[in-house]
Amino acid sequence: MTYKAAGVDIDEAERLVDVIRPLVERTRVPRMMGSIGGFAGLFRLDYDENIFRRNYREPVLVACTDGVGTKIRVAIDAGRLNTVGIDLVAMCVNDLICCGAEPLFFLDYLAVGALRPERIAQIVKGISDGCARARCALLGGETAEMPDFYRPKEFDMAGFAVGVAERSRIVDGTNMEPGDVVVALASDGLHSNGFGLARRALLGRGRFRLTDCPPELGGASVGDELLRPTRIYVRPVLRAISPYRVKRVVRAMANITGGGIAGNCRRVVPDGLSLRLKRSSWAVPPIFDLIAAKGPVDPIEMMRVFNMGVGFVMVVARHFAPAVMNRLRRAGERCWVLGKVREGPAKLQWA
Amino acid sequence: MTYKAAGVDIDEAERLVDVIRPLVERTRVPRMMGSIGGFAGLFRLDYDENIFRRNYREPVLVACTDGVGTKIRVAIDAGRLNTVGIDLVAMCVNDLICCGAEPLFFLDYLAVGALRPERIAQIVKGISDGCARARCALLGGETAEMPDFYRPKEFDMAGFAVGVAERSRIVDGTNMEPGDVVVALASDGLHSNGFGLARRALLGRGRFRLTDCPPELGGASVGDELLRPTRIYVRPVLRAISPYRVKRVVRAMANITGGGIAGNCRRVVPDGLSLRLKRSSWAVPPIFDLIAAKGPVDPIEMMRVFNMGVGFVMVVARHFAPAVMNRLRRAGERCWVLGKVREGPAKLQWA
Repeated sequence: MTYKAAGVDIDEAERLVDVIRPLVERTRVPRMMGSIGGFAGLFRLDYDENIFRRNYREPVLVACTDGVGTKIRVAIDAGRLNTVGIDLVAMCVNDLICCGAEPLFFLDYLAVGALRPERIAQIVKGISDGCARARCALLGGETAEMPDFYRPKEFDMAGFAVGVAERSRIVDGTNMEPGDVVVALASDGLHSNGFGLARRALLGRGRFRLTDCPPELGGASVGDELLRPTRIYVRPVLRAISPYRVKRVVRAMANITGGGIAGNCRRVVPDGLSLRLKRSSWAVPPIFDLIAAKGPVDPIEMMRVFNMGVGFVMVVARHFAPAVMNRLRRAGERCWVLGKVREGPAKLQWA
Repeated sequence: MTYKAAGVDIDEAERLVDVIRPLVERTRVPRMMGSIGGFAGLFRLDYDENIFRRNYREPVLVACTDGVGTKIRVAIDAGRLNTVGIDLVAMCVNDLICCGAEPLFFLDYLAVGALRPERIAQIVKGISDGCARARCALLGGETAEMPDFYRPKEFDMAGFAVGVAERSRIVDGTNMEPGDVVVALASDGLHSNGFGLARRALLGRGRFRLTDCPPELGGASVGDELLRPTRIYVRPVLRAISPYRVKRVVRAMANITGGGIAGNCRRVVPDGLSLRLKRSSWAVPPIFDLIAAKGPVDPIEMMRVFNMGVGFVMVVARHFAPAVMNRLRRAGERCWVLGKVREGPAKLQWA
């Protein structure tokens, strides 16, 4: 009896390291010290280099972890594995920047039914692309072969991101005031939440196939639309807030994931204040209307599960909102005024 | 159609947060700033506090990720969920300390078939225990409900640990010399590797049940033995090396996981040097002999897959080896001289 016969192939695992190495090297930054063969990844904090010292007097590490849920199932069914890695990075780094942190590095955990280096390389390609977009180093990762847990083509993954923020400039909603402006940044479709419901509504028995192109989607297939990578807001958001860090004119930020706009925005609103959001301030993208119609899914449930076209929210001091929005647009974002901050007992109200 | 009907229950997810909170609070340290409700966990690096400043002039962040493989299957089958979390923490922090890093914080990703707060609390209890043993804060985590990926009682998990090391004192094998002593630290059984093979050898059709107590195991059941938590070496190892950090008398360390003693030790040996290890220097624990006999599994394959009783290895300057071993013993470890460093082309040789 051998480990290989029991379904785990150490030789293939060693070959995998060679396949992945160039994908990791792409994301290398000078502060990354570790190598993929070591027990752990090493990352210099650069206390002694002037740039870091100038920016961070009291650095706070910020860390988060996330997965992409059953979006993976769509990727497997569509045979398109090279984008869910972008989603994985996005889910983590978009959470990280909510407090104003700058992403430093990322690690991935991949559990597969069968260790096929070429398939895994596709997944890691996506992760590497995501890290490049988020400007963070892919510092390490683990690929576990678990034949008793996953079928040969199945896998699951988890991501882990670490960033750094200056303590006195952490964005946490505490200085929010009545009159502040709530700015919405457009999402790129579903991102990575609500796939349990979306798949049931669109792909259940007698509904669409992934290759179908219903006229509502204007040319895109259902698979294209479902697999559209989660937008990574790191560069535009950090660029937009960078001139205003000291004044703290960006009061709060929320990454719109499971729980929807209301569920996520509520988390950053101090007691006594209320976000008054205008439902009519944007047009919901067609994919959400299609899910609602095909389910059918109740509008309230839709708002609770999906981002509905709003991927990220920033609360900005009124006076600076136009300038922040200009910076976001110049960085390529579509954004609009979603509402205002008022006094009131309900943390969030729709108008 | 609702998200709940599609198998995902947001209300249960909110209840889970309340169940987990006290388990997280147990691991709280003053440097931990974030709360479980936020988008990310926050951890102060304490530049301005004297203790940290004295220890870390040029801090390097060290990070790693790991899972516990199919040991989870044994935990599920035995209905004992409160120890695999210890394994998860151990797998990460034991890698972290190989370079001499001090663990700072840990995050967990848990993917479950059905979100049952009481079951998940058991798992997180183990993670919290592991963090307490490793003296690191449980800074955050994610629990994903994925009914289409995992059956109701099934789950998978990934851990992420971040630590810090002083750049000039990183332990990486580069100052290893002929004459250095190789010290072995005893394992607590299988730890979390080789379970694909171990389960096939012991639990396959017509073999043992988890509740069987074969005489070879001296009273323990097969389930007890397989689920014994991975030993966490953080405290003894950091205590043993702390007086010798400046002199760098600890040359290299290896966490013995998949790949066995040879596969893991080899990674830290510089070219031109060779570890000469004595196979007769320790008695292999009975569980390994039982697996080899029942498989049957070839002795070479056994050494390649399992730790065989050696959980952690330290290479120490000859002169300091007795003192380091004394410190390890006073910290509760069983350790012995496994071999010596010689000049030679093969990175590792068995004698």
